[in-house]
Amino acid sequence: MPQRYVRVKTTQGNIHYGSLNLNRSVAVFDTAPWDGGQPSGVVLKADSYEFLAPCFPSKIIAVGRNYKAHAEELGNTVPQEPLLFLKPPSTLIGEGQPIYYPHQSQQVDYEGELALVIAEVTKNCSEKEARGKIWGYTIANDITARDFQRKDNQWVRAKGFDTFCPLGPWVIRELSAAAAIQTFVNNETEPRQSALVQDMVFSPQAIVSYISQIMTLFPGDVILTGTPEGVGPLNVGDRVRVEIEGIGSIENPVMSVPTSNTTTSEPENKQPQKS
Amino acid sequence: MPQRYVRVKTTQGNIHYGSLNLNRSVAVFDTAPWDGGQPSGVVLKADSYEFLAPCFPSKIIAVGRNYKAHAEELGNTVPQEPLLFLKPPSTLIGEGQPIYYPHQSQQVDYEGELALVIAEVTKNCSEKEARGKIWGYTIANDITARDFQRKDNQWVRAKGFDTFCPLGPWVIRELSAAAAIQTFVNNETEPRQSALVQDMVFSPQAIVSYISQIMTLFPGDVILTGTPEGVGPLNVGDRVRVEIEGIGSIENPVMSVPTSNTTTSEPENKQPQKS
Repeated sequence: MPQRYVRVKTTQGNIHYGSLNLNRSVAVFDTAPWDGGQPSGVVLKADSYEFLAPCFPSKIIAVGRNYKAHAEELGNTVPQEPLLFLKPPSTLIGEGQPIYYPHQSQQVDYEGELALVIAEVTKNCSEKEARGKIWGYTIANDITARDFQRKDNQWVRAKGFDTFCPLGPWVIRELSAAAAIQTFVNNETEPRQSALVQDMVFSPQAIVSYISQIMTLFPGDVILTGTPEGVGPLNVGDRVRVEIEGIGSIENPVMSVPTSNTTTSEPENKQPQKS
Repeated sequence: MPQRYVRVKTTQGNIHYGSLNLNRSVAVFDTAPWDGGQPSGVVLKADSYEFLAPCFPSKIIAVGRNYKAHAEELGNTVPQEPLLFLKPPSTLIGEGQPIYYPHQSQQVDYEGELALVIAEVTKNCSEKEARGKIWGYTIANDITARDFQRKDNQWVRAKGFDTFCPLGPWVIRELSAAAAIQTFVNNETEPRQSALVQDMVFSPQAIVSYISQIMTLFPGDVILTGTPEGVGPLNVGDRVRVEIEGIGSIENPVMSVPTSNTTTSEPENKQPQKS
C-alpha cells in the first residue's frame, strides 16, 4: 500500500497532518508533509479522529472542460488553453462530511476529478519541470450548481457554496497515467462517470506549467484537473462516491442545509491570522 | 486621524500587524486586530519596515459592474445580482510595491476600488446584520488584463496574475458613504476615475449579505466592491494611485516582469501550513 497522507481532527478537536497506517491508526506529523513534516512520534488510534480535507490550500484552482467528451456533453468545445476557475477554500470538506444542497439551487451536480497537491513555491515552470512540482494526488468532487453555472457570467456562485469541494481522503505520491476515475451514486454498480486520467486534454504537467505562468503556486495548493463525461444531478439523501484507481475513494452524503446563520464551512479551513 | 491598521515587514524580515502612529512608527499587535489583536508593547521606528497588504485573507471576493457608468463604459448592463469573481491571494501587494506587467498581455488596466475587511465568521447574514460584519475599509486596485478578460470565459487569468491586487496602505474602522474614490496616473492632476462610494449599485452591506448566502466569510477576508467608470490602460514606467477620502491613497509603480522563474508574489501571502 502506498503511503497515505491525511489531515485529521481528533475527538478533542486538535488538527494534525499525518500518515495512515494499515490498522487505521494515524502517525502524526509535526507539520504538512509538503512543508517537510516528519512523524512526531504521536499515534492516533483508529476511532479517535475524523478525516478532514487533506490539504489546507491558499488557493484551489480548477480546470474546466478538460475531457473532450465532457466538454461536448455540455455543448462546449475543448478550449485551446486550460479554462481556469477558482473555488474558495471555504468549499472544502473531507471524507464522509455532508455536501449541503443550497436552497437557492434547483440542480446540484457531482463532478469527480483528480486533484494535484503542489510541492513547492512554483512560478514560470516548464512542463518538464512541472512533474517535480506535484507533491501528490488525491480525489476531488467539484460540486456544481449547474443552474447558476448556466445563469451567471462567472462561476463563483455555481462552484463556491460551502461544502462544494469534497477532497481526500488522503494524498499519495505517485499515480499511474492509466488510472481509472469513476463516480458512483448510492448503491448503483454502474458508474455515472468512467474515464482514464490520461484522457485529459491538458496533462497535470501542462496544467501546472500553464497556471505557473500566471500565478505563484505554494506548497499545499490544490489543482482540480477537470471532470470526465457523465456529470449529473444529486438529490438530498443521495450518497456520491468518486474513486480513482491507486488512490481509493471519497464518499459524501447530500443533505439539506441546516438552520440559517449556521456556517457549513469547516472552521478548520479558516486561514490562521498570525502576526 | 482615525486609527490606521497596518501589516508590515521589518528590515529583519519579520511580519507584524500593528497600528500606525502619527510619526510613522508602528505599534506592533500580537495578532491581527480583527482576531482580537492588542498592542504588544513593541514599537517599530519609521524607517525600519515596509508596508505589506494589510490583510492576509483566506479569500478575496470581488464584485463586477457595481457602478452603473462603469458597466456601461464596457458595454454591459448592471447585473440584477452582484456579479462575483475571485482573485487568488497571490495577487496581493502593498503600498509602493511594483505591479508587474505580464508579458502575455497587451492591455493591463487599473481599477480603483473600495475594499472591505471582514470582522468575524459570517454566514447567511441579513443586510442589517452585515454592517457589524465589516471590520473596516481599505483601498484596492483590481488590476485587470483587459485583453484576457475579453478573451477568456472565466476571469481568473485576467484578474489573477501575481501583483494584480495592490491593497492598503492601511485599514480604518469607519467610512463616510459620501467618500470620494479617485484614481490618478503619474503626475496627472485630473483623476482618471472619480466617484462617490455611495454611487455603488449594491452597497457594502448588500454585498456582504449576498456573499454570505453562498460562502462562509472569515475574519480578515477581503471584498472588493467594484470600480467606477474611467478604467484605462497602464504602461511599464507608470505610477498609479488610488485615493479614497478618509482613508488615504495607495500608489504602485508598473514594472516589466523580472527574469523568468522568479515569483513576483510576496511570500508573505503564502498561507502557513501548520499541523
